[in-house]
Amino acid sequence: MKARVYVTLKPSVFDPQGRVVADALVTLGYQDVKDVRQGKFFEVELADADPAAAKQRVTEMADKLLANPVIESYRVEVLQ
Amino acid sequence: MKARVYVTLKPSVFDPQGRVVADALVTLGYQDVKDVRQGKFFEVELADADPAAAKQRVTEMADKLLANPVIESYRVEVLQ
Repeated sequence: MKARVYVTLKPSVFDPQGRVVADALVTLGYQDVKDVRQGKFFEVELADADPAAAKQRVTEMADKLLANPVIESYRVEVLQ
Repeated sequence: MKARVYVTLKPSVFDPQGRVVADALVTLGYQDVKDVRQGKFFEVELADADPAAAKQRVTEMADKLLANPVIESYRVEVLQ
């Protein structure tokens, strides 16, 4: 079973990397780009087969290791 | 209008960062973690209002700047 964790900076936190990407896109000629926020995701493959249990465990992993809850928020999605 | 670009290493490319995260999760007690692959995503905010045109432009951006097509694949999703 696979689960995905999407980690993104909270909206109130400044994202310099996204800012640079947005500026680069405007320089490349994409004038209609207003803003870019960058995030990361983890695709976790589990031996576990129960979707509800997997979601709970992966949420725990995100809290403990994958995301920094002070400045980042995350979303967990179980795939199969 | 917002669009998201999910960039991930191609399956044949070794992902050392994901490997380290998988090992760390096993060390933390999550023995059922078999593998982790890490990727990134960009949330692009556009002035453009037409979803089809937005998807085409963002796909172009992904090809030119956001992803390295030699080792990475990407997926574009238009949100609103």
